[in-house]
Amino acid sequence: MTDLFGGLPETTPLSDTDVQFLDTTLRDGEQAPGVSLAPTEKVDIARRLDRAGVSVIEAGSACTGAGEREAISRVTEANLDARVTSFCRGVRRDVDLALDCDVDGINLVVPASDRHIEGKVGSTREDVLADTVELVEYARDHGLWVELLGEDGSRADIDFLSRLARRGFEAGADRVCYCDTVGHATPERTVEVVSTLAECGPTSTHTHDDLGLGVTNALASVAAGADLVHATVNGVGERAGNVALEEVAIAIAHGYGVETVDTTLLYDLARTVADATGVPLASNKAVVGENAFTHESGIHTDGTLKDEAMYEPYPPETVGRERRLVLGKHAGRAGVAAALEEHDVQVTDDELAEITDRVTDLGEGKRVTDADVLAIAETVQGRERERRVELLDLTAASGSGTPTASVRLRINGDERTASGTGSGPVDAAVGAVREALGPSGDATLDSYHVDAITGGTDAVVTVEVEMTRDGRTVSVAASDADITRASVEAMVEALDRLHAA
Amino acid sequence: MTDLFGGLPETTPLSDTDVQFLDTTLRDGEQAPGVSLAPTEKVDIARRLDRAGVSVIEAGSACTGAGEREAISRVTEANLDARVTSFCRGVRRDVDLALDCDVDGINLVVPASDRHIEGKVGSTREDVLADTVELVEYARDHGLWVELLGEDGSRADIDFLSRLARRGFEAGADRVCYCDTVGHATPERTVEVVSTLAECGPTSTHTHDDLGLGVTNALASVAAGADLVHATVNGVGERAGNVALEEVAIAIAHGYGVETVDTTLLYDLARTVADATGVPLASNKAVVGENAFTHESGIHTDGTLKDEAMYEPYPPETVGRERRLVLGKHAGRAGVAAALEEHDVQVTDDELAEITDRVTDLGEGKRVTDADVLAIAETVQGRERERRVELLDLTAASGSGTPTASVRLRINGDERTASGTGSGPVDAAVGAVREALGPSGDATLDSYHVDAITGGTDAVVTVEVEMTRDGRTVSVAASDADITRASVEAMVEALDRLHAA
Repeated sequence: MTDLFGGLPETTPLSDTDVQFLDTTLRDGEQAPGVSLAPTEKVDIARRLDRAGVSVIEAGSACTGAGEREAISRVTEANLDARVTSFCRGVRRDVDLALDCDVDGINLVVPASDRHIEGKVGSTREDVLADTVELVEYARDHGLWVELLGEDGSRADIDFLSRLARRGFEAGADRVCYCDTVGHATPERTVEVVSTLAECGPTSTHTHDDLGLGVTNALASVAAGADLVHATVNGVGERAGNVALEEVAIAIAHGYGVETVDTTLLYDLARTVADATGVPLASNKAVVGENAFTHESGIHTDGTLKDEAMYEPYPPETVGRERRLVLGKHAGRAGVAAALEEHDVQVTDDELAEITDRVTDLGEGKRVTDADVLAIAETVQGRERERRVELLDLTAASGSGTPTASVRLRINGDERTASGTGSGPVDAAVGAVREALGPSGDATLDSYHVDAITGGTDAVVTVEVEMTRDGRTVSVAASDADITRASVEAMVEALDRLHAA
Repeated sequence: MTDLFGGLPETTPLSDTDVQFLDTTLRDGEQAPGVSLAPTEKVDIARRLDRAGVSVIEAGSACTGAGEREAISRVTEANLDARVTSFCRGVRRDVDLALDCDVDGINLVVPASDRHIEGKVGSTREDVLADTVELVEYARDHGLWVELLGEDGSRADIDFLSRLARRGFEAGADRVCYCDTVGHATPERTVEVVSTLAECGPTSTHTHDDLGLGVTNALASVAAGADLVHATVNGVGERAGNVALEEVAIAIAHGYGVETVDTTLLYDLARTVADATGVPLASNKAVVGENAFTHESGIHTDGTLKDEAMYEPYPPETVGRERRLVLGKHAGRAGVAAALEEHDVQVTDDELAEITDRVTDLGEGKRVTDADVLAIAETVQGRERERRVELLDLTAASGSGTPTASVRLRINGDERTASGTGSGPVDAAVGAVREALGPSGDATLDSYHVDAITGGTDAVVTVEVEMTRDGRTVSVAASDADITRASVEAMVEALDRLHAA
């Protein structure tokens, strides 16, 4: 077999490598614009990373402030198996602040490219070398594990970088790290620099995704001799972000049979970090995106129903997830039949063909939900829809006072009016619906989702809800320029479907 | 220099390659769950792809339905320089339907792996070969350019794939395509298969991102002899999506100096496709994500103010964008000083230090907007804030009737009450604010954004607005469980800042 990453004198086949992770979600990830993690969030994420088997957790940057030091200290107190470290700039004060947090080690960053040495710090190569030696010795004298990072290493002079690494190791550094700080390097450049560093001692790699090459360069680094990969969960980080931990982990596991972390915990980690950072996951994000294991097109759904591996590289359970089949513009009969079966609707072959046609028509321009398929089946089969729960009237008011809403519903023929208050008009209206339903409203709202609103204050918003009752689940979407109305309509429609015989 | 992608007998250094794009946003991209493009949207996207220099545009799948065929026909009628094609399954009917749309060529997909040949289609290798020859000849006889795709090629027997390619070329196919349909392959496997196919004739490559290796495998394919890369804008597509056109284009341009498309049009393309598909761009998406050229942390902002290339691999203008400096938890003095200057606020060094401290404190847990920095500066400098526009009272009602709202504002000391209607309560309230301001409300609402809402109906939502008046722009964010209240508060705050002397 052609051996790309193991085909050069400087590289090793990836399947023969041994590699671990340094997770920098809590430091580099937190430097992403708008992201800020509270100490409790940091500890929670650190515990999950530790459970997954990450070997080093960079918990923050002690020089940032008192709040940050408190967060780092809370992580070091959590008794994790992972080594806990702090980022430090090349100044003694930063090392002292890291020591105050009782960390196991530091990630000591010194400028490596002339642009950073001269343009940013106003220093010289010789001064950087001298300062580095002094700081590494100081940190080692205080019992710290030291990883030495040459910032902007991918744009640095390779001979200087090599001198920096050797002087660092002589001073006692435990490892050096290749830093593609600005996400600039090709895999060729990565192999060149990492193999040079790896000749000096244990080497880490830190890649960014500005060119979409984050994973490529992480793998190229490992092939070239790096054995500790810096990564962040979901790839959060400065600019286009760091390389995503879950992508490197699954690429190495699936592609080369090398185990790094417990991959079944990856999805849980992704969700936790997305919630804490407020950086949502793209639906088409590898491994952890909403659609990574979703099949909609007819060919893919049909194939998947015949053989689950037909359109998947590995089962979703590998990363702690489940497969989803959904309907839309490209739906086929197999997928529609499966959806109808789930709701106990029996159809003939002719009816199935007609329903499928209408589903694909409806799919032009919108998502097709369970409620849509059921309504289409009724029309095609000429069945009269018997509404159990119907919205007759809705009023919601909010502003300076307490948000209030009232609804008038027809439930199994009886009209009922109820009101509610809430944290906002939507919440108040949903409360009023529940109140009107009384004990029969025992359905759970599994999810409530509104896509991001951009454009203007008159944009039409689509509210998607998923509700479950007695083990049966339905998805419904409703669109309106009024978010309150869309929310209530979606919920009432779901309740009606769940109350049907 | 180490030459990874050009270091093997089967590969060519990427800098010596010549490569073009087949864009499949309108076909594979549209197969993403929930995505459906109207004919006018398809034509608009196709025109932009053509302008950017994409050489082949797969406009859709003619067999999908009449609406899809109309869309494909509209693209073929647009007189583009690019070749316009339709996806066809290995059945004559699909080729006929493509001919009806007057396409220049077809992307003929036949099963290549035994899993697909036997498990999905219930056929045999020999029958697939025979059918393929017949269909390629049929398509060629009708004047079509033919690209032959072996579906699931990355999991196919390489000898069979090679036979399929040779038979296809003998029958007149213009090129064959390596398909990593399920995003399963390592770059090593990619080089192995692509180099084998490239020995048979012109070869394309079609990669997916399930393992985060979409770009890696596209580049490995080119090094192995492929000269046409299938990609979608923003990487939209089945599951984790196809490889992103903009990532491959910039990686090849920046990393290897090879020009493929006009990169300055990439951001415009990305925005157009994100709007049309409804698949939002992740903030940390390479090249086109909101934060790809945003700097927040103090070290990065300071470095960037000294030298724009300090923390960027290439200037944002390369892809039609602009750089952004924002403030947050990791802000430094240089960034805060730059923001204050923009709003003509003069401060001493001591004040700047104090303001920066408060900005970083505030950044723990939220984004820091212009309005926040201005308020902090006032506090630190002991200046009394003179409010020009102040919200005294807000009432908004919506439901079954017309959404209505009223506000009571104090404007330059005078109380004014006004009401408005709108498409929803937010829109009505914003209308009421404008009404109350009268002619002095001549500020434009440049952007109105609400992050996606998940979790529950009582989730706190953050509304971000950016408004401009007389050439001055301010950003404001307001959070509340009531989206109406948050929207009005953000807008009134922005107006107040813009009406200040």
